[in-house]
Amino acid sequence: MSKIPVLETFGPTIQGEGMVVGRKTMFVRTAGCDYQCVWCDSAYTWNGSEKHRTRMLSPEEVMDELVALGGNRFNHVTITGGNPALIGDPMRRFINLCHQQGHKVGLETQGSRMQDWFFDIDDLTLSPKPPSSKMETNWDTLDRIVHELTGHSVNFSLKIVVFDNEDVEYAKSVFARYPDVAQKYVQPGNAHTDASGNISAYLLERLEWLFGVVISDAAFNSVRVLPQLHAMVWSNERER
Amino acid sequence: MSKIPVLETFGPTIQGEGMVVGRKTMFVRTAGCDYQCVWCDSAYTWNGSEKHRTRMLSPEEVMDELVALGGNRFNHVTITGGNPALIGDPMRRFINLCHQQGHKVGLETQGSRMQDWFFDIDDLTLSPKPPSSKMETNWDTLDRIVHELTGHSVNFSLKIVVFDNEDVEYAKSVFARYPDVAQKYVQPGNAHTDASGNISAYLLERLEWLFGVVISDAAFNSVRVLPQLHAMVWSNERER
Repeated sequence: MSKIPVLETFGPTIQGEGMVVGRKTMFVRTAGCDYQCVWCDSAYTWNGSEKHRTRMLSPEEVMDELVALGGNRFNHVTITGGNPALIGDPMRRFINLCHQQGHKVGLETQGSRMQDWFFDIDDLTLSPKPPSSKMETNWDTLDRIVHELTGHSVNFSLKIVVFDNEDVEYAKSVFARYPDVAQKYVQPGNAHTDASGNISAYLLERLEWLFGVVISDAAFNSVRVLPQLHAMVWSNERER
Repeated sequence: MSKIPVLETFGPTIQGEGMVVGRKTMFVRTAGCDYQCVWCDSAYTWNGSEKHRTRMLSPEEVMDELVALGGNRFNHVTITGGNPALIGDPMRRFINLCHQQGHKVGLETQGSRMQDWFFDIDDLTLSPKPPSSKMETNWDTLDRIVHELTGHSVNFSLKIVVFDNEDVEYAKSVFARYPDVAQKYVQPGNAHTDASGNISAYLLERLEWLFGVVISDAAFNSVRVLPQLHAMVWSNERER
């Protein structure tokens, strides 16, 4: 395969979450996922509902789209999905192309699949999915990825989306399992990804709850708690 | 002077803004400032209204208070003011004490005064004040501080609070003046620091405005835009 299955490109916008929160960036969202999280906020990447929108694009075509959208108003590209780690060599070439054009590259994946182009990512987020997702973590795979990233000094973070107390315990177990990972995040989950109105009050309530969880527990002393800023500002609007 | 003028200590709480946004931390707020920003959200540190609350404490006494409040539930201490850079040797000793106890130290100052203990800070924010503050930036002093911090490889950021378009231009000029500073932030100002009710809708509007400013201008390609999360969650509540 020499092309990338692209569901959407958009931006410039603001990265609303995680290790590069607040950074202006372009988004490339790939189609296809090995997970089906029950609360996925991008289920259209894997449930077939937008299969007709998926296009097979070369790395150069993806870059052309980003430049057409953003002109000179960006120097950072975020790749997300779906799970972009399902894609091999075309993704490596796209990342190289970004670097050639002077752009930093962020990528988010659940950590279920390794790619050696992970070593080329500037801001890599591994986001293992907690029990509320109804997915199972493959710990052998995740261990291997964390080990490889650490060995290659990749700038990466672990980020756990948290909906309930069981997820809190899962987050603690992940962070305890990888004590050498410096950048650790928890993020309140959005249970209203289908709501059409303003959800900021709900999201702030969930953030206040998670603030309280983190504050009260020494296990979270080195963990950052951040919301999804884009969802607070723009609710569930697509491509924002 | 062997003591620190402390207006309040509180925590553990979540750092709501800037380079360590989302991090659990204890706060030490010093009294006294060389500025009087018209929109200061902590004017009680310098306008005399809480002079009776200010206590002269030794570094050890400050640490005792933090431990009494936070127990083992923190490993980061944020020093703010007022302008904590007005304080000399007692502050150096307090920072050393934090490090001896295993805590990282963040500090925020406007960059009007240098202290050589700046080199010991783990997360240092320089926050020069824009025109809306009615303060004048001393560029010679700021140049010297940025130069010294860069030379000593201090982990520091520039953060500009922005209220209006004139402030936007000021932020651009600061960032253009210091191209080698990697960590740059803009933050929407809070014009309702005296409001008693929920100000989250207002703050989200201002964040959306500033998102738009950053998105549309190539001068902000490498700048992060972040709100004050604590004000969105807890409005203007003190010691939160």
